[in-house]
Amino acid sequence: MQEFTKFPTKTGRRSLSRSISQSSTDSYSSAASYTDSSDDEVSPREKQQTNSKGSSNFCVKNIKQAEFGRREIEIAEQDMSALISLRKRAQGEKPLAGAKIVGCTHITAQTAVLIETLCALGAQCRWSACNIYSTQNEVAAALAEAGVAVFAWKGESEDDFWWCIDRCVNMDGWQANMILDDGGDLTHWVYKKYPNVFKKIRGIVEESVTGVHRLYQLSKAGKLCVPAMNVNDSVTKQKFDNLYCCRESILDGLKRTTDVMFGGKQVVVCGYGEVGKGCCAALKALGAIVYITEIDPICALQACMDGFRVVKLNEVIRQVDVVITCTGNKNVVTREHLDRMKNSCIVCNMGHSNTEIDVTSLRTPELTWERVRSQVDHVIWPDGKRVVLLAEGRLLNLSCSTVPTFVLSITATTQALALIELYNAPEGRYKQDVYLLPKKMGETSPHDPHTLKKIFFKITFIFFLFLSS
Amino acid sequence: MQEFTKFPTKTGRRSLSRSISQSSTDSYSSAASYTDSSDDEVSPREKQQTNSKGSSNFCVKNIKQAEFGRREIEIAEQDMSALISLRKRAQGEKPLAGAKIVGCTHITAQTAVLIETLCALGAQCRWSACNIYSTQNEVAAALAEAGVAVFAWKGESEDDFWWCIDRCVNMDGWQANMILDDGGDLTHWVYKKYPNVFKKIRGIVEESVTGVHRLYQLSKAGKLCVPAMNVNDSVTKQKFDNLYCCRESILDGLKRTTDVMFGGKQVVVCGYGEVGKGCCAALKALGAIVYITEIDPICALQACMDGFRVVKLNEVIRQVDVVITCTGNKNVVTREHLDRMKNSCIVCNMGHSNTEIDVTSLRTPELTWERVRSQVDHVIWPDGKRVVLLAEGRLLNLSCSTVPTFVLSITATTQALALIELYNAPEGRYKQDVYLLPKKMGETSPHDPHTLKKIFFKITFIFFLFLSS
Amino acid sequence: MQEFTKFPTKTGRRSLSRSISQSSTDSYSSAASYTDSSDDEVSPREKQQTNSKGSSNFCVKNIKQAEFGRREIEIAEQDMSALISLRKRAQGEKPLAGAKIVGCTHITAQTAVLIETLCALGAQCRWSACNIYSTQNEVAAALAEAGVAVFAWKGESEDDFWWCIDRCVNMDGWQANMILDDGGDLTHWVYKKYPNVFKKIRGIVEESVTGVHRLYQLSKAGKLCVPAMNVNDSVTKQKFDNLYCCRESILDGLKRTTDVMFGGKQVVVCGYGEVGKGCCAALKALGAIVYITEIDPICALQACMDGFRVVKLNEVIRQVDVVITCTGNKNVVTREHLDRMKNSCIVCNMGHSNTEIDVTSLRTPELTWERVRSQVDHVIWPDGKRVVLLAEGRLLNLSCSTVPTFVLSITATTQALALIELYNAPEGRYKQDVYLLPKKMGETSPHDPHTLKKIFFKITFIFFLFLSS
Amino acid sequence: MQEFTKFPTKTGRRSLSRSISQSSTDSYSSAASYTDSSDDEVSPREKQQTNSKGSSNFCVKNIKQAEFGRREIEIAEQDMSALISLRKRAQGEKPLAGAKIVGCTHITAQTAVLIETLCALGAQCRWSACNIYSTQNEVAAALAEAGVAVFAWKGESEDDFWWCIDRCVNMDGWQANMILDDGGDLTHWVYKKYPNVFKKIRGIVEESVTGVHRLYQLSKAGKLCVPAMNVNDSVTKQKFDNLYCCRESILDGLKRTTDVMFGGKQVVVCGYGEVGKGCCAALKALGAIVYITEIDPICALQACMDGFRVVKLNEVIRQVDVVITCTGNKNVVTREHLDRMKNSCIVCNMGHSNTEIDVTSLRTPELTWERVRSQVDHVIWPDGKRVVLLAEGRLLNLSCSTVPTFVLSITATTQALALIELYNAPEGRYKQDVYLLPKKMGETSPHDPHTLKKIFFKITFIFFLFLSS
Repeated sequence: MQEFTKFPTKTGRRSLSRSISQSSTDSYSSAASYTDSSDDEVSPREKQQTNSKGSSNFCVKNIKQAEFGRREIEIAEQDMSALISLRKRAQGEKPLAGAKIVGCTHITAQTAVLIETLCALGAQCRWSACNIYSTQNEVAAALAEAGVAVFAWKGESEDDFWWCIDRCVNMDGWQANMILDDGGDLTHWVYKKYPNVFKKIRGIVEESVTGVHRLYQLSKAGKLCVPAMNVNDSVTKQKFDNLYCCRESILDGLKRTTDVMFGGKQVVVCGYGEVGKGCCAALKALGAIVYITEIDPICALQACMDGFRVVKLNEVIRQVDVVITCTGNKNVVTREHLDRMKNSCIVCNMGHSNTEIDVTSLRTPELTWERVRSQVDHVIWPDGKRVVLLAEGRLLNLSCSTVPTFVLSITATTQALALIELYNAPEGRYKQDVYLLPKKMGETSPHDPHTLKKIFFKITFIFFLFLSS
Repeated sequence: MQEFTKFPTKTGRRSLSRSISQSSTDSYSSAASYTDSSDDEVSPREKQQTNSKGSSNFCVKNIKQAEFGRREIEIAEQDMSALISLRKRAQGEKPLAGAKIVGCTHITAQTAVLIETLCALGAQCRWSACNIYSTQNEVAAALAEAGVAVFAWKGESEDDFWWCIDRCVNMDGWQANMILDDGGDLTHWVYKKYPNVFKKIRGIVEESVTGVHRLYQLSKAGKLCVPAMNVNDSVTKQKFDNLYCCRESILDGLKRTTDVMFGGKQVVVCGYGEVGKGCCAALKALGAIVYITEIDPICALQACMDGFRVVKLNEVIRQVDVVITCTGNKNVVTREHLDRMKNSCIVCNMGHSNTEIDVTSLRTPELTWERVRSQVDHVIWPDGKRVVLLAEGRLLNLSCSTVPTFVLSITATTQALALIELYNAPEGRYKQDVYLLPKKMGETSPHDPHTLKKIFFKITFIFFLFLSS
Repeated sequence: MQEFTKFPTKTGRRSLSRSISQSSTDSYSSAASYTDSSDDEVSPREKQQTNSKGSSNFCVKNIKQAEFGRREIEIAEQDMSALISLRKRAQGEKPLAGAKIVGCTHITAQTAVLIETLCALGAQCRWSACNIYSTQNEVAAALAEAGVAVFAWKGESEDDFWWCIDRCVNMDGWQANMILDDGGDLTHWVYKKYPNVFKKIRGIVEESVTGVHRLYQLSKAGKLCVPAMNVNDSVTKQKFDNLYCCRESILDGLKRTTDVMFGGKQVVVCGYGEVGKGCCAALKALGAIVYITEIDPICALQACMDGFRVVKLNEVIRQVDVVITCTGNKNVVTREHLDRMKNSCIVCNMGHSNTEIDVTSLRTPELTWERVRSQVDHVIWPDGKRVVLLAEGRLLNLSCSTVPTFVLSITATTQALALIELYNAPEGRYKQDVYLLPKKMGETSPHDPHTLKKIFFKITFIFFLFLSS
Repeated sequence: MQEFTKFPTKTGRRSLSRSISQSSTDSYSSAASYTDSSDDEVSPREKQQTNSKGSSNFCVKNIKQAEFGRREIEIAEQDMSALISLRKRAQGEKPLAGAKIVGCTHITAQTAVLIETLCALGAQCRWSACNIYSTQNEVAAALAEAGVAVFAWKGESEDDFWWCIDRCVNMDGWQANMILDDGGDLTHWVYKKYPNVFKKIRGIVEESVTGVHRLYQLSKAGKLCVPAMNVNDSVTKQKFDNLYCCRESILDGLKRTTDVMFGGKQVVVCGYGEVGKGCCAALKALGAIVYITEIDPICALQACMDGFRVVKLNEVIRQVDVVITCTGNKNVVTREHLDRMKNSCIVCNMGHSNTEIDVTSLRTPELTWERVRSQVDHVIWPDGKRVVLLAEGRLLNLSCSTVPTFVLSITATTQALALIELYNAPEGRYKQDVYLLPKKMGETSPHDPHTLKKIFFKITFIFFLFLSS
């Protein structure tokens, strides 16, 4: 439904990704801004920095921000218990001893917990950012201070981007044997520039749709000489990203932006897919009266049996207090709808893209826009009516809420388990192919389904054990 | 249960009240801080300020902040529809024409909506602050700019405090005939200093327990020559302040401070009164597994029938992810409990006072405190275990969440309706007595219960009509 | 709200009480009818019967039905664990040793469990029925077989009724010292006919409003020389009888009569008191779309904040699938409403009396009544439209559902505890007065509130301990 | 999950099917038994009966039961509004004019509504029963009285069974052109005995897994010369049969058998598939404390995120009040578990087969079985402990509850729509193949998926429109 990470591969067009929102910049704004707004405009590439142990095997914005970053990592650790359990349990046997992992992901507190877990399990890691904007500089500094070879900062140029990746791969006396990638850029770079390294890689773990797509292209062309595993599309991850995550972020996003009381409010939710189901469950539970619009009859029947009135948007638009879109379609809320809303109506989007609400139609001379808070606009009609538009129609959960660390820990734990599996798998268990985790329970896979399902099952079960520990 | 406004009457000891928390300072911190941290340390009493219409009949921090304050008022208006409806409906008949209201309340965006409503209904208003810290300077400026005679700023001295009150009452050619008070200081001042004014007051509307207590003392002494109405203790307000409000603020408070995911978490809630019921309903609805501790057998039975396991704290303290107190008792969570919590356990208080968690017991040398964010401390045990303590054990909903405008609008609307009722009541309907709105549905009152109940009924019904309009 | 037991004291007018419905005659109809429809029309008073131990110290319909009755008692015991726990725990100390209890209640499987518990605790019991229709003959037989002196059968004449009571009290060499009554007839009989016995009674436990009323009259007249305790009006019992019980019986009653699916149905519930709250919670949870009508603004606000749309009945009457009344008022559903309902609409009453639906208005020539099942009528309009009327507008939960044994066990346990308390209380703890258990938590009582509240608290707490054991 | 209709094709081994349970025999037991227990033991085949219009074109048990059966049909019509809507809307155009449908299904009130709808749409119908035990004789009589050529009674011999089918197909001057089958016996008979008829059939609509399996065998063998449509395996039907239906029937089944109160009860549900999800949602909503056992990690995670504690059965077996199995596995509840349950524990099965509870292990000499009600056994341990076993471990929802008419109306409506579609489809739209409706939203099908999905979509949408009308 929501493809958080499906950005184009041209770095120049990379949009803001999830990792930015999760940085919850609001919460520590004062501290963060003091460190971020460094007037120091010297490029990190030109700086000479060493950490407290004398190492300069990294390149970050400002190593002095390490302490603040360490605290962010400590906060993240509190809700990543599966990963911490893995760290503790597997620490004795060091299942990644000898692994030389080169990684390219968003650099956030949560990925830092992953990276430090991999190290604790015996791996050597070198890391760069998969997005030129998403690096939390303080976290990068903390990693560098802790001895990880990290090459990343917020606001890299495209040239910086590839330079960082190259610094990870290209090091005398060190040759990567595992790849952890998000988007496929690192994989592509190794494949193109260091074919001899590529051949000796034991396995690739890829998080994104884009990256998997590129791997398939390699595979089709007969050039993929390494087993690869896609950790994105499992049913577990999908449920978390959509149903469970949105059940919480709809409340959080609305509260942080508008302080609205949910009890007694009339809300219309457009679309009753997984995202819509999550939004509706939460709002209903807190005492809102929820209406649904839905064109898919199966989803409509589900809404019906879950106790929601399925309506046409026109029927309720005059009476509702909140309008939420999560259909994946365009122009679900039109200017005509907006014209008919009552004063104070809140409009926001939880769906796929930023086109569900026809925001463009509101940029006309007779309407006044007033930015009343960050991410909150009052659009004012000539008669004084105000519509409260959140995040200018972009994704509310990414713009105005945070992705819970716990949700991120699911992917991170799966990545760690996938790396362990690929690194320790006996010769022949995996072929030179792309392994896609089952999308649906019970679904078969084209690649030796039984083995794979067993593995997936095992991974999920271990994961569950960690969770409930 | 929670007496938000029960502070001592000595201004020097006035504690931070609800109005501070509701200012949601986090949300507009950058803007606010720019205006608040004015280096201008001149006392407002010594400044010469005029609003854009040339009036200087006010005394605020900085009239130039009016525009920002106006926006805050506009935001507040969006969720105070009952008051706005009242404004619109009663505007024609001007039921407060001739009313000269002197008021003393927290000066916030929400009270500003109330004040401007009273003006729209025909009243003349002069206003001061009931708390030396709680004034939102920008809102005061906006009121002044709009022509309200407001005398208040954040950080008044005790002398300032009484000076502001006096400026409201003591004006040539203007004599108050109604009082709207919160705490009883204004009433006391008029009674003591301007007995002739006091005798001609048509009615007092008082919001706080303290103020009502003082009115009773006057009444007992035979010195209350005015009917007074307490708008605090109605069942409606109690339900909103506790059950409905906490149902939302427990989620909001936890999310803003910790970004924790609720789904799948094990939570123990100490106390199943109205606050506890609200917390439990919300957490259960979002997928948490909730345990209750409760010593009152009736509440315990209710918890039981609502599907919660009633346990002793000791039974579950090792396994829970979150501990929430709302008992009204002391030391519900002891050092011993804290010692046994698991790593990452979040501890917070939604109850009456700040003594439910024995925070003092944590200030010992072997424990390290780390402030990781505003209102969030990690308390670290020698073995590395961290307990996440929120707001140092003070009220989470006041410290880390906002009171929804909608909840505040209930009191505000009732205040407006009470003023209209007292101002227009025929001679003899109200005696020189304190009228306490029924605490419980069906409860009798010592003062001509039938009349009073009818009035209360009428007020609530009008209120409901506005709500659902 | 619902006064199950408030019937007039003239035995001739006694209406069907709860105990009848709880016998769940439907479930074992075949077996029951074989025993009930005994062609033997000889009055039990004229029969000579002995139980298997040779005793004939009883008078029941047919001692041979004992085995079937024993099974009903065994079923009831399964959901009366508090009473069974009490039996087990107190069996050693025999707190009722020496107690000679004369009782007059409905004779059902549940009261049989109470009576046998009292015996197990050391008491001697003699028992009659408080209602001429409500005796379960098989249960009476089982009690007689077990050695209890029971005098009761279904279909007593008024003369039989008093004869049975007299047989309990008037026995050579045995003098009652405790009374357990339901309605006050037994108490009245002892007071009038056996004043010397009455004076030596240690305590009366009374279950009904009527009985308590009569005790007050005695007390006012200065003739009550015994402490009495009303176990009916506690907040616990009220909550169970209304909120918790109706939450389940609305589903049960609708299902057993109509097999209707709840999911997706539109339902309007008239009245949002405790009964309405229970109905709405259950129906909403099972996927119905629920509307509320309510004239009390406080209840309406609660409905609102609980997420229900508050409407006027006219607004939704054409679209709803089910109409449920629980207001306590008359003619809430009028002929006009009935005329506008859609085909298949189900109409039923959960409220106080049988006048909430204007059933009389349906008895007109143009409408055809068709009895399609027991308690289910199709009322057919000339155009073929059918309205499904349940129990002819009488209480659905009493007519078409069962009162769960668990709910009955609450009163029964409280009765047992009250008897133990009164029998063992030190001289002077109770005066010659009527003790009314607090109706609301925290409420004060005119009679030495502190002692009483402590006792009530103790009773409830013991009760809770038993429950959770 | 639950294959209600998957019985072997040997008629001798046909087990009791859903249609029996849905007859809700308890509810009208007296009336029904009077008609059923007819001492008339003459075979219907040997009787001469005519309906009130003089026709004898049918063979049923007793035409005089027609009136009672008509009432059952009328009750069923009340909750089959989609079918009734279809009847009304399509009545004008008669989309089945010319259709000669031969049918073989359970003969119940609900299928009677389907059959009479087909007639109303223009079809001529001849009908037999697909199960020798499941016919409601009164309903068959009502159909016969209304002019439908029905050949079915309860308790047919195998010879009767085939005779009835043959009577439907083999009639001078009438040749079937459509088949509606449940189990494939009719289809098989026509294929084998009347190959010339079979070739001219325009379409087969088959409801059961078994029947579809047999059609596939025909198809593989190249002998299926007719398009066939399976209406069983759509996602909609699966959701209704499992999730929505069990959400209601778990409550209904427990209540009718035990009158247990749900509030406050501790319940363990084994298995969190669709059936388990339904059971848990309902029980939680009514105030039970629910534990889950689950071995599939994905389902376990879902349980976790839905707020249930996932446990091992051993951990909670001593404390729970109710045990419900819905895993689809064998011996989930073993004798060891049963030995450790507490007194009064209720044990029942909602899962696939009757082997989830190891009932056999309870048939040992030291345990006493006591049948206390229909479908309710007390199994008594030597120490007096009783376990309450429902339906001897068979499916609770089929044995002790009713399948709501609404659920049955979904299949029936889909069957009607499928018949209309196949009858009116232009030449070539359907090939000689088996069309399986998509099992999952978005799933592709081997047979021209786009067309089929469009049709399915259309059918479901029409269906939804009818529902919400």
